[in-house]
Amino acid sequence: MRYGFLGPETTFTHQALLQALVELPAERSAEAELVPFTSVATATNALVDGEIDAIMAPIENSVEGGVSGTLDVLAAHKRITIVAEQIVPITFVLAAKEPSALSAIREVASHTHAQAQVQRWLRENLPSAAILPASSTAGAAQALAEAEPEEARGRAAICSPLAAEHFGLAVLARGIEDNVGAQTRFVLVTRNDRIPARTGADKTTLVVQLPADRPGSLLEMLETFKVNGVNLSRIESRPLGDALGRYSFSIDIEGHLEDRRVASALRGLHRSCAVTYLGSYPRADGQRTQIDPVMADGAYDAGNEWVQSLSRMIAPQS
Amino acid sequence: MRYGFLGPETTFTHQALLQALVELPAERSAEAELVPFTSVATATNALVDGEIDAIMAPIENSVEGGVSGTLDVLAAHKRITIVAEQIVPITFVLAAKEPSALSAIREVASHTHAQAQVQRWLRENLPSAAILPASSTAGAAQALAEAEPEEARGRAAICSPLAAEHFGLAVLARGIEDNVGAQTRFVLVTRNDRIPARTGADKTTLVVQLPADRPGSLLEMLETFKVNGVNLSRIESRPLGDALGRYSFSIDIEGHLEDRRVASALRGLHRSCAVTYLGSYPRADGQRTQIDPVMADGAYDAGNEWVQSLSRMIAPQS
Amino acid sequence: MRYGFLGPETTFTHQALLQALVELPAERSAEAELVPFTSVATATNALVDGEIDAIMAPIENSVEGGVSGTLDVLAAHKRITIVAEQIVPITFVLAAKEPSALSAIREVASHTHAQAQVQRWLRENLPSAAILPASSTAGAAQALAEAEPEEARGRAAICSPLAAEHFGLAVLARGIEDNVGAQTRFVLVTRNDRIPARTGADKTTLVVQLPADRPGSLLEMLETFKVNGVNLSRIESRPLGDALGRYSFSIDIEGHLEDRRVASALRGLHRSCAVTYLGSYPRADGQRTQIDPVMADGAYDAGNEWVQSLSRMIAPQS
Amino acid sequence: MRYGFLGPETTFTHQALLQALVELPAERSAEAELVPFTSVATATNALVDGEIDAIMAPIENSVEGGVSGTLDVLAAHKRITIVAEQIVPITFVLAAKEPSALSAIREVASHTHAQAQVQRWLRENLPSAAILPASSTAGAAQALAEAEPEEARGRAAICSPLAAEHFGLAVLARGIEDNVGAQTRFVLVTRNDRIPARTGADKTTLVVQLPADRPGSLLEMLETFKVNGVNLSRIESRPLGDALGRYSFSIDIEGHLEDRRVASALRGLHRSCAVTYLGSYPRADGQRTQIDPVMADGAYDAGNEWVQSLSRMIAPQS
Repeated sequence: MRYGFLGPETTFTHQALLQALVELPAERSAEAELVPFTSVATATNALVDGEIDAIMAPIENSVEGGVSGTLDVLAAHKRITIVAEQIVPITFVLAAKEPSALSAIREVASHTHAQAQVQRWLRENLPSAAILPASSTAGAAQALAEAEPEEARGRAAICSPLAAEHFGLAVLARGIEDNVGAQTRFVLVTRNDRIPARTGADKTTLVVQLPADRPGSLLEMLETFKVNGVNLSRIESRPLGDALGRYSFSIDIEGHLEDRRVASALRGLHRSCAVTYLGSYPRADGQRTQIDPVMADGAYDAGNEWVQSLSRMIAPQS
Repeated sequence: MRYGFLGPETTFTHQALLQALVELPAERSAEAELVPFTSVATATNALVDGEIDAIMAPIENSVEGGVSGTLDVLAAHKRITIVAEQIVPITFVLAAKEPSALSAIREVASHTHAQAQVQRWLRENLPSAAILPASSTAGAAQALAEAEPEEARGRAAICSPLAAEHFGLAVLARGIEDNVGAQTRFVLVTRNDRIPARTGADKTTLVVQLPADRPGSLLEMLETFKVNGVNLSRIESRPLGDALGRYSFSIDIEGHLEDRRVASALRGLHRSCAVTYLGSYPRADGQRTQIDPVMADGAYDAGNEWVQSLSRMIAPQS
Repeated sequence: MRYGFLGPETTFTHQALLQALVELPAERSAEAELVPFTSVATATNALVDGEIDAIMAPIENSVEGGVSGTLDVLAAHKRITIVAEQIVPITFVLAAKEPSALSAIREVASHTHAQAQVQRWLRENLPSAAILPASSTAGAAQALAEAEPEEARGRAAICSPLAAEHFGLAVLARGIEDNVGAQTRFVLVTRNDRIPARTGADKTTLVVQLPADRPGSLLEMLETFKVNGVNLSRIESRPLGDALGRYSFSIDIEGHLEDRRVASALRGLHRSCAVTYLGSYPRADGQRTQIDPVMADGAYDAGNEWVQSLSRMIAPQS
Repeated sequence: MRYGFLGPETTFTHQALLQALVELPAERSAEAELVPFTSVATATNALVDGEIDAIMAPIENSVEGGVSGTLDVLAAHKRITIVAEQIVPITFVLAAKEPSALSAIREVASHTHAQAQVQRWLRENLPSAAILPASSTAGAAQALAEAEPEEARGRAAICSPLAAEHFGLAVLARGIEDNVGAQTRFVLVTRNDRIPARTGADKTTLVVQLPADRPGSLLEMLETFKVNGVNLSRIESRPLGDALGRYSFSIDIEGHLEDRRVASALRGLHRSCAVTYLGSYPRADGQRTQIDPVMADGAYDAGNEWVQSLSRMIAPQS
């Protein structure tokens, strides 16, 4: 198996993938080949083209919210499926080529997302340092590692602990993130040929595009979930791209396509909305879904059988 | 075919049955045997026991509302089905054995339901007459017809025009009902072996008992109808009989069991409510149901097929 | 105070009124004058005209359901208010002028409502007796008491224990009602000048006429209650009288007009429905309403104050 | 008046501000002082501190969606109010210091948001060019303008037409955005002391934090809007920042705080949600809100008066 990830090496996505491989049987894990990509979009293209077998991609961050790039790419490809999720705690270090006093740091490079998560620390500890953009936190670390000592003086990078270690940098400060306890959720995506069997502790991910010019259709969508006893664990609006105020919704629901109540909700949504099914997969936290007895499989099956038994009495059209 | 009706002869129920027979092919109509019963309950017992093949019974009056007796009897028998409805205009006459001035009338007999519908007229035209209860309007007319002339003097009956004519009474006043334009709706009920095929202008009658002690369950029932695009044309609460505040609902919806949207709503209701299906049948007014395209059979079928195609990709449980 | 009731004396309504008077201070109770009426309608007219000060009327029976006559009369008068409710257990006796074997009884008279509640007992114990209508159970008892012994032989009345005792009849059988535990709820109605203060265990009675030709308006009404955390304890449909399928709803809700949540729901209903307010009054069972904190008075007041504070910043129209 | 904007000069935000000033009376427009800021956060701090009087900030892009930085800053400050909106068409040019063939371009600098909007064009026209991040499109243009000719050779910037013109760059390609017709919506924010008067064509912006651990609270929020006839024109989820799956919603509704229906919805939301009111202001498109008569001010006022008139009859607590 070849696994793509949002690279370069030592990103949090890389870490999520390593975490996922640990859960595999040892022989499969040993055979895994890890392939970094510069964007989720290029990794997804490689997946669809068959060059790789799966990709790990960030989907949601507890501080920054939905990862637009991943959400939009997933929504745009019909033939791919989420088969697992991983949750990774997000923590940052300030790293330099050589040990140094903070007061000596004049420039700090990092990816804009990482910068956003350490703003307060920077303001309080390095108020006069210039903040420079980099294509990734790992890229910032690597650039520093590869710079001449002279050139590297007074410069630092904000990166993951893994990146600092990997590139042999000196850690000037740890745990500098503004939101202690931040997490990012990653999804493992494959080509669409197999949905993992139901475990009882599952999530299903959808993209739903509401009908245009029908006020109240968001409410109707939520009612369709509610009458089937389906809870949402995430809802994220994403622009359709054609005009202001036109959205689709990226949604996680509690349950599996195999659950009658989930299947029933999907059937209902399909009638009025354009729905993209992105997969049903075990929850990372393993928490089983509590199901109201009137929403259990047995209740749906009994309802079906009752209506079928009635329907057998309908006279044929004359 | 033997048809039972709420007798005696010349009741409005009798008239509804005659009206229904007119719509049958001549040879079937000619063979029909009409059997009066003293109550809907006894007629229904005869139906269930196979002594008769169908019964005509009043279900709803535009002035008085639901006819409790019929509603309760229908709800109590699982093996009977409504196969047609008839609507009969309700108009009353004041009739006497011999032509007479109104001023000479001292006693007026009628069924309490009929009395309720001519109260104003009686107050204005016969303010000092005694109002006597009778077991039916026809019974009041018949009693008058069979009375000795002496005994009949000063007495009148409130009855249908048909009754007055049938029993050879003199009509003292016509159209004496307080609510001009009043109508009663009757249903034709058979043993439960055949539901008439869908015509596109159909009604379905249900009795729904909501789950006890679950506030909001009436709202949930209505939401189940709404998310399936099903309109109610009648809702009537009936006591369960065991305690104050405990109800079931007698409901007519627009549509036929063969409509996917109706079947879907019934399946949904069945999960949390005790539902009695009382039949799907052509509407008396022939008005076709307008259906939102997202609630049409094709939309339901497409939703089913989509979910089925997804479900085929679920890996078998290991 | 003069109190009207649905007579004659010894009806269950009479009993409800006696029950209510017991709860009054002794001096007020002693001064009370009780006036029987032949119908709720005539009693209500007397109330509106100022001839009496209050009336007691049956509104709901656990077996038979809503009492149409009362519901319709209450809905038709804008100037009257329910100020209390009483619940009376309903039990019947079979009574005769003289002690007699059941086998000797050939005729049984009673009001049709009472007959409906002893059907099974009559079928099993007096299958061949003729069932005769009477204008009230008390009337049936009184007629028997006043009949000559000769004339009274073989005849019995179905009436309340109170009636049998009052008219000196012999009780042939007790507790003959089909539904043991049946109850009737009565309301005490006054002219509309004073609503009893909130007790925390209150009910409010309304009549709501939904807008015509707006499918889903029943659902909207229930949503208005729900968003204000208001539970319904009774809902009864009553025909408007002008056409089949046209209804108003007689509704009891848990709570008092003084509750912000009730006032808010009423304001909302008033916008789209014709609402008749029939009163807020203490519940007979004294059970206090459980209120979700977000629906408590304080939450409404805080919301109002917040919006008012915002509104003070609106620039005047130029 | 001093106006802050997300700088540097020539950004789309700058353009939105210029557009807004055109609508002011000439003397006020002439006195306006424009102050660029490096982020919405720093501009907002300056606003709150009184250094500037208003800021223009991007809130929503038809392609990229909500502008998280602005949404989060607005939600975090209670004392600021949106008073106007501006919509700016988004179009990009590829610009270089000197006219040049596309084939000569090896490096392209721009802000990541701009890059995201020209990806396809870059892939098709400059597949082998390196894409470099810049802190803003204007910064990329300025850097190029200030570079030595030698250094600038083979380099280009993606920027607004205004930036290319302002910095005297040569435009190599115009209209290179992937989504023709893209727009960004900007809001003008002031300190919270004056809400513009209602025009009849208004929007109101809110941030709503749903109660934790109450499934269905999003549905309840939408129901609160619906029962008051309030349509949403935008809904955007934003993480609360404390844990995965914890969100607030940034919402635009059609209407003004002065509309009774809007005030009523806000009062309702306030009971169960933490609501931040961010302002009511005229819509950029001037389109008047269509209001269902039952949701008009008059209907709300009539409901209030009715309930008040009833409430005056409540007896004082004894």
